[in-house]
Amino acid sequence: MDKEALAMVFTEAEKPFSAVEVNIPKLKSGEAIVEITYTTICTSDLHSYYGRRCAHVPSVLGHEVIGRITALAADGVADFYGESLRIGDLVTWSVYAHDHSGAMAVKGIPQKSQPLFKYGHERIGENDILSGGFATHCHLRKGTDIFKIPAELSAKESTPLNCTHATIAGALRLAGNLKNKNVLVIGAGMLGISACAMSKSNGADQVCAMDQTAQRAENTKRFGADKTIDASLSTEEVLEITQAIGGIDVVIDTSGSAAAMEKGLNILNIGGIAVWVGAVYSERNISISAESVVRRILTIKGLHNYIPEDLAFAIKFLEAAHTQYPFESLVEADFRLEELDEAFKTAHESGKYRVGITPN
Amino acid sequence: MDKEALAMVFTEAEKPFSAVEVNIPKLKSGEAIVEITYTTICTSDLHSYYGRRCAHVPSVLGHEVIGRITALAADGVADFYGESLRIGDLVTWSVYAHDHSGAMAVKGIPQKSQPLFKYGHERIGENDILSGGFATHCHLRKGTDIFKIPAELSAKESTPLNCTHATIAGALRLAGNLKNKNVLVIGAGMLGISACAMSKSNGADQVCAMDQTAQRAENTKRFGADKTIDASLSTEEVLEITQAIGGIDVVIDTSGSAAAMEKGLNILNIGGIAVWVGAVYSERNISISAESVVRRILTIKGLHNYIPEDLAFAIKFLEAAHTQYPFESLVEADFRLEELDEAFKTAHESGKYRVGITPN
Repeated sequence: MDKEALAMVFTEAEKPFSAVEVNIPKLKSGEAIVEITYTTICTSDLHSYYGRRCAHVPSVLGHEVIGRITALAADGVADFYGESLRIGDLVTWSVYAHDHSGAMAVKGIPQKSQPLFKYGHERIGENDILSGGFATHCHLRKGTDIFKIPAELSAKESTPLNCTHATIAGALRLAGNLKNKNVLVIGAGMLGISACAMSKSNGADQVCAMDQTAQRAENTKRFGADKTIDASLSTEEVLEITQAIGGIDVVIDTSGSAAAMEKGLNILNIGGIAVWVGAVYSERNISISAESVVRRILTIKGLHNYIPEDLAFAIKFLEAAHTQYPFESLVEADFRLEELDEAFKTAHESGKYRVGITPN
Repeated sequence: MDKEALAMVFTEAEKPFSAVEVNIPKLKSGEAIVEITYTTICTSDLHSYYGRRCAHVPSVLGHEVIGRITALAADGVADFYGESLRIGDLVTWSVYAHDHSGAMAVKGIPQKSQPLFKYGHERIGENDILSGGFATHCHLRKGTDIFKIPAELSAKESTPLNCTHATIAGALRLAGNLKNKNVLVIGAGMLGISACAMSKSNGADQVCAMDQTAQRAENTKRFGADKTIDASLSTEEVLEITQAIGGIDVVIDTSGSAAAMEKGLNILNIGGIAVWVGAVYSERNISISAESVVRRILTIKGLHNYIPEDLAFAIKFLEAAHTQYPFESLVEADFRLEELDEAFKTAHESGKYRVGITPN
């Protein structure tokens, strides 16, 4: 190509991506360029591409992404821990750039800062195209929390860190101490698998995974789940299973299914907590008895995206747990960047946990 | 009377109480007898008496109660802080007696211990009658958390401590740090008034009180509320009012009204928290958008009763705040124990915050 970088631009639902050649932008203070080494197609990329949620267009999708630093602003850029980054460092980064001294950051909710720059979600401008993972390069904006990737982790292991695993780290932060508690994970996709493994690694006693698909539920047993539950069972049937192991103290919903979330609330032990992360698409409302929430002293917590500390936690988790759980096996197909249309088709139709893209 | 004590026994909804004379029981280890000096009729006493909730019968109602110790078990009884109690001490006590080393106590939810002895709620036995506040004496069971009442507090001020104020102290514990946060209190009865005062005393910035009755809402301004909101306003109208002061970070619902709780959730700021304590009676289910809970990173916490530490906190609050807020004025009528039927009728029909009973 004539130019220095290539981005696959998303213009309209289910339309082929447009390959656009661009020059690498000049860097301002706090900025960096990474040459992308691997990107995985997240379920929310599919939601955007297949029109199931409102997405800015034109845009460069892709936010589960890693890369090597090829350029740094003249005054240098530090990672999350304050250490200077160097050319050649293999890194992951928070899905958003934000003002670390802004009001929402001070409140502990940086992911809701205004303005917020979200990788893989921004409408692109003429000179502002390298904002997503489906490209050869990504332009890291000031206020992005950047983390070096531990050398032991493979690309397939580390690429889902900055979306899947960081979100689950946030869910566990909200769930509190899991020591000796029983956890029910609803939904056995990437988020659910991460939730099973991370819950077990964080001291949960029994981990149960519930899904509509028996094979998906079964697969969680390779990732720390002790028991699987068929999502089509009634509340009473689920209770019978869970009460035999002492009941469920924590529910982590990754499914976004209203019926499943209601079931999760109804089977919680007294004092139990439900953390919802999956409900990021339109569904019918949840119907809950406030009297039951009060008398059973339940807690419900919603989480959208995560805070940078969660990504830090997720990296430490994966560094310790990657030999124990076969996360690499979850990226089940590989495509080159030029094959992005086919890659999306495969991800959409096959139900594979993740499909990976090698841009360079 | 021939016997040493008198209890007014509740046998059936809306039927006159039966005066029953009993002897003071012999005390076992950990037990005490108090001569009741004052009892207030709590709204839940009215729920029981008017058949709006399932209550054990026969029973002695009344649990907002204080009294003077007249007898102690031979091996002595310590208060919550481990100090020995003495004959003549004026005390309040947790509404329930529980095993402090039981599983639920260890979990931090002692109010859901099994077994649990709840003052003012137990079915009485032939030799086990002095279990409620509408009597001359109360027999404090082992495992009751007993607190000396600060000398500065009047009977009318201190009697609601072990139900109203302790429950609100629990709600504030769940709400977390209120510093610089705006609080909406839903329902302006005793619980709501306590919530306004305690929120303000605990660092809340703006405190809003919402009620259906303008005069009730208005009265909260004597108890720390900065602004009142008519509960009949639409969500959009409430939002207009609350956004003008920076939005609402914490909602404390004392109403139990499904519509009001939904409104509370819908107007919360991003990262906001709703604490529900009022929903202890049957109402229609709450309808909530899980997507909204997730994207706005909301938390919902239910609370039923409280933990002994909450009662300790409530006493410290009242000791500090009783000169600032006219809590004494909330007990608006006085009756003798023999007039209990009339007292209930007055409490039920007049809508007075509290009606007080002097048994001795």
